[in-house]
Amino acid sequence: MPPFQTFNDLRALMTALPSTDADAISRARVRDAVLTKPPGALGRLEEVAFWLAGWNGVAASRVQMVIFAGNHGVVAQGVSAFPAEVTVQMVANFRAGGAAVNQLARVVGAQMMVCAIDLDRPTADFTQGPAMTEAEVIAAMLVGWDAVDPEADLVVPGEMGIGNTTVAAAIACALFGATPGDWVGRGTGVDDAGLARKQSAVAAGLALHPSREPFEVLRCLGGREIAAMAGAMLRARTLRIPVVLDGFIACAAAAVLAASAPGALDHCIAGHVSAEAGHPRMLAALGLQPLLSLGLRLGEGSGAALAVSVIQAAAACHTGMASFGEAGVSEG
Amino acid sequence: MPPFQTFNDLRALMTALPSTDADAISRARVRDAVLTKPPGALGRLEEVAFWLAGWNGVAASRVQMVIFAGNHGVVAQGVSAFPAEVTVQMVANFRAGGAAVNQLARVVGAQMMVCAIDLDRPTADFTQGPAMTEAEVIAAMLVGWDAVDPEADLVVPGEMGIGNTTVAAAIACALFGATPGDWVGRGTGVDDAGLARKQSAVAAGLALHPSREPFEVLRCLGGREIAAMAGAMLRARTLRIPVVLDGFIACAAAAVLAASAPGALDHCIAGHVSAEAGHPRMLAALGLQPLLSLGLRLGEGSGAALAVSVIQAAAACHTGMASFGEAGVSEG
Repeated sequence: MPPFQTFNDLRALMTALPSTDADAISRARVRDAVLTKPPGALGRLEEVAFWLAGWNGVAASRVQMVIFAGNHGVVAQGVSAFPAEVTVQMVANFRAGGAAVNQLARVVGAQMMVCAIDLDRPTADFTQGPAMTEAEVIAAMLVGWDAVDPEADLVVPGEMGIGNTTVAAAIACALFGATPGDWVGRGTGVDDAGLARKQSAVAAGLALHPSREPFEVLRCLGGREIAAMAGAMLRARTLRIPVVLDGFIACAAAAVLAASAPGALDHCIAGHVSAEAGHPRMLAALGLQPLLSLGLRLGEGSGAALAVSVIQAAAACHTGMASFGEAGVSEG
Repeated sequence: MPPFQTFNDLRALMTALPSTDADAISRARVRDAVLTKPPGALGRLEEVAFWLAGWNGVAASRVQMVIFAGNHGVVAQGVSAFPAEVTVQMVANFRAGGAAVNQLARVVGAQMMVCAIDLDRPTADFTQGPAMTEAEVIAAMLVGWDAVDPEADLVVPGEMGIGNTTVAAAIACALFGATPGDWVGRGTGVDDAGLARKQSAVAAGLALHPSREPFEVLRCLGGREIAAMAGAMLRARTLRIPVVLDGFIACAAAAVLAASAPGALDHCIAGHVSAEAGHPRMLAALGLQPLLSLGLRLGEGSGAALAVSVIQAAAACHTGMASFGEAGVSEG
């Protein structure tokens, strides 16, 4: 039997998430204090090591990247600089190893999986009706749930889906308020007219779908790859596996979970802040501090993949450094 | 015969540095434009690839870290939270593989070399007289010069030297102006009284040594590991090997070169901005934008080592990605 079959099942699951292990964090702090460096000198690397300690232990060797792809009915509103067939073309590129994220996964030694979800069956155009049925959302979330490798030290959900910055902006606007203009950005690079079409589409979607309940927002305004990412993040939490969040789309998936239960993203770290206009606002709404800020706006999991190297560095320092006593170094 | 024996030799060398290869950068831009991503979507990774292209080609596989260590007479002024013997103890820790930078070098697959320079012969206390003679500066610079592996794709100079944030602050204040208080920070973690002693020492050094000629500043206020880093950076430039700058101390070494000749740091990238108080000001004075900002304040080359993974990612994307044509992906 699947772990959830309805939104009510999901809501029940969200009330019973495992918590961080405070004792493990305390032990990591005790170890950190005797490592051969001034206290605090590794800055965020120390925080990252403590965060890892609270979940599955300070390890980041086995990294699983999962790229979910979906298509979106809202592209009919002229919201993307690229045609919808690019989604399936890029899936082939991921499988052939030619995309940016393939190179980035290789640099950090990550395994990469690609899950294309019903690409020949786009979601409905949310300016005309709900993007999905509850059953479609559940099915997509289960794709993400089932994709997670229970042996992974880190999970990195990525995505591909022409039109999905518009979808993510609609989700963010529904969950966090403000105006469509605060959340809509240029995505892959639309011009001013395209930007106006994106804002109009988001405004129309929000007017048509008044519910602000998180899973209803995901159903009415979301997409399959976004639901799948949320499912993967949730599955990782039940397995106590830390998750690295990528950009605006991945954070929209995370936002659905965050809005459903307090602390739902405690196992997640923001890999980077992207150049997509709404991403800094999204991170602020989620209370997340990004590790990197390199002006990326690609999606695919690319920024999160880059951040994996920082997390691996944090784990390597914490586990590999000598103590003052072991090294015969005088303390200050 | 050594490549330089006097400061005048060095000044002549600084006027004949190789320049970036504009044709190679143009070719890299042409390739970038057809890779399977929206134009500009890799943000700073694209700039990094172009920068690499202009020197030794877009490669970052063979990474050489060289950690230079020196001792400083100015520690007699009570400027560090750690005793001077920690320098030699940490050199042993580097050689045994127990320091933070060893773990970070391993994560990025860098080879690591340690050059301890006359640790039993500290520089003179610059509040009492010149830190070094011209011959001592030249000798230390030649240690750095000779350490560089001509086959390296990237060189990362790091350092260890109890007291050297005070030395770096003195160099920065002499070269860039402002007040000692603008450049002095807490280093490994001095208290308020220690901070005041650091500021007093820098003020005394600046008053005692009026020359602002860069190599004279290095001689009067510098240290052997800083001179060696400058020598390594200069040697890398003559070999067209890009250099990743670490924190406040490494940037003080770079500042001596920058103040000696326009464009002297064109082959250098700022790996990170550290938590040491004067580092943001130093980077601004050098016109450098850091790749990372993770609150590190350790030195050793640690922040630069972390940045190597970003540079490797940039090179991997540029060289490994498929073009639109190769992948059969429609362009926007």
